[in-house]
Amino acid sequence: MKPNYTRPLDLRSGRIDLNHGAGGRATAQLVAELFGRAFDNPWLAQGNDGAVLPAPAAGERLVMSTDGHVVSPLFFPGGDIGSLAVHGTVNDLAVMGARPLYLSASFILEEGFPLAELKRIVDSMAAASRAAGVAVVCGDTKVVEQGKGDGVFIATTGIGALPPGRTPGGACARPGDVVLVSGSMGDHGMAIMAVREAIAFESEIRSDSAALNGLVEALFGAVPGSDVHVLRDPTRGGLATTLNEITRQSGTGMMIEEAAIPVHPQVAAACELLGLDPFYLANEGKLVVICAPARADQALAALRAHPLGANAARIGQVIEDQHGFVQLRTALGGMRMLDWLSGEPLPRIC
Amino acid sequence: MKPNYTRPLDLRSGRIDLNHGAGGRATAQLVAELFGRAFDNPWLAQGNDGAVLPAPAAGERLVMSTDGHVVSPLFFPGGDIGSLAVHGTVNDLAVMGARPLYLSASFILEEGFPLAELKRIVDSMAAASRAAGVAVVCGDTKVVEQGKGDGVFIATTGIGALPPGRTPGGACARPGDVVLVSGSMGDHGMAIMAVREAIAFESEIRSDSAALNGLVEALFGAVPGSDVHVLRDPTRGGLATTLNEITRQSGTGMMIEEAAIPVHPQVAAACELLGLDPFYLANEGKLVVICAPARADQALAALRAHPLGANAARIGQVIEDQHGFVQLRTALGGMRMLDWLSGEPLPRIC
Repeated sequence: MKPNYTRPLDLRSGRIDLNHGAGGRATAQLVAELFGRAFDNPWLAQGNDGAVLPAPAAGERLVMSTDGHVVSPLFFPGGDIGSLAVHGTVNDLAVMGARPLYLSASFILEEGFPLAELKRIVDSMAAASRAAGVAVVCGDTKVVEQGKGDGVFIATTGIGALPPGRTPGGACARPGDVVLVSGSMGDHGMAIMAVREAIAFESEIRSDSAALNGLVEALFGAVPGSDVHVLRDPTRGGLATTLNEITRQSGTGMMIEEAAIPVHPQVAAACELLGLDPFYLANEGKLVVICAPARADQALAALRAHPLGANAARIGQVIEDQHGFVQLRTALGGMRMLDWLSGEPLPRIC
Repeated sequence: MKPNYTRPLDLRSGRIDLNHGAGGRATAQLVAELFGRAFDNPWLAQGNDGAVLPAPAAGERLVMSTDGHVVSPLFFPGGDIGSLAVHGTVNDLAVMGARPLYLSASFILEEGFPLAELKRIVDSMAAASRAAGVAVVCGDTKVVEQGKGDGVFIATTGIGALPPGRTPGGACARPGDVVLVSGSMGDHGMAIMAVREAIAFESEIRSDSAALNGLVEALFGAVPGSDVHVLRDPTRGGLATTLNEITRQSGTGMMIEEAAIPVHPQVAAACELLGLDPFYLANEGKLVVICAPARADQALAALRAHPLGANAARIGQVIEDQHGFVQLRTALGGMRMLDWLSGEPLPRIC
């Protein structure tokens, strides 16, 4: 029996078929009845090949960032691929110092994927974008044959406006700068691992997936823009990879105090069990801040005053080091290198 | 033997592995040695989580558009997924009346994909973006396990600047308006079909994949912006679907002359052989223009003066019709409805 695209979408028991990606009536119906309703905003409602948007205010520059999302499983404690796709791109803009304004969403769906699950994902995405104050203004849907994809992939791209006076960047770290993190490390990565490995803990480990633009604005409200040297969200590769990227970009080194880095006891225990290091696990709602030493206390106070930064901590400082090494003073007083991740991969964490 | 990410990428016989998507050293190497070199521009070289870009000129608005690309096969006569990904998004911006400025590229790669093929695709993408005058300013790479993807998917998002006085949109078609196309219909769709079905013709059918921003600027150079009512690129679903979208958005109908629609003889013959209709086949380098009748001659002349519009033709007109029907006067003098595509899909055409 041929599907009937003149009846409403069967969001309870229907499935994605190849027609939904063919650009005809089925595609139009999916866009209107699922995406259009969930993301509902005037730009999307323009219904053209792109969205016409107001330009940023005078003196502001544009920031653009993109991320593909292939997380597996699609649903996990603390989020799903939909909320993650919003948070990932919002955060990439926020750590550039920008106010995130608009998102685009490109869906690559696998034939046979249940519409009910797609609706859950799209609703979650819409809720996350509303909470972050960022509209999904344009989108695209493609469908691949069963076995040529994996349920849902979502590529999101964001546009933000960069106010004058904000210039954070990986190359701007200077010896003497202080390194802060906004909270515990490794929660997202361990939440995904725990589901994949079907490990049950006393209490569930939840992803920290969250939009960081509010936290970043709180920081810039307390510290002059020029004193915030680097902002990063330590996602894939975790804190260790992010710090190494920064030392490479800025031609510096770092001395980090292991005992100062917040890690949830549950995550620490799970890491021990699985032989993983929490400093290499992805975070999806945490900030690394590197700022002028004279501003460190103000910055830390601003982070701690925000719900997403309650456990913020000062974890070390930038030092002179032409090799770009990130050194970790261990809890026992020894030293080890926090090197680039190059061994085991944690694929499809985001 | 573990791969060694301290040696240069093996672009001749290497393959994508899961580490290339893990965010560590292998990802950094792939970005630096492949993407960074091919797309080489100051924004990408910033090396941060996003690109900081100049805002559009005063009085201009922003336009944003996104497209996922899953075309199969990845290489076809006249292009590949890389050039197509650039053209698709550049054209979506151009048909909004915007000057395309910046692109982002999100790659979803399948484990085991040959680096040599990826390099071919990335080089083609870089060449297409240079030819269109649009920089790839930021990107992302994810890797999925073998059997969970299909070689390469690319989601591109574009930002353009919309000069004042240009307001084309699907809702702006008015009864009496003239409908033009910039050239032959169905070339891209048939080029893909011919490769898939391994059909050999006397001469190869080539995709029309091309960037339309130059052609659109030529049109706006000849016709006042307010007289260009609708611009569209008839991609998935072809001319028929595009015209139906326009009549639905504008609450009009259309009367189209079949004999006036340019179709390459090779494409027409192949359509007959395969039982396909060229008006439902995708185009990737063609424009549909709907303009005020008084400007039709100027518009047609402007299109024909451009290399990409040499075969432009006037194919019909917008009429009053509350049902939104697109009627086709056939070459034999009969009438048929050019309805929405709802039957057989042509999946993964772009």
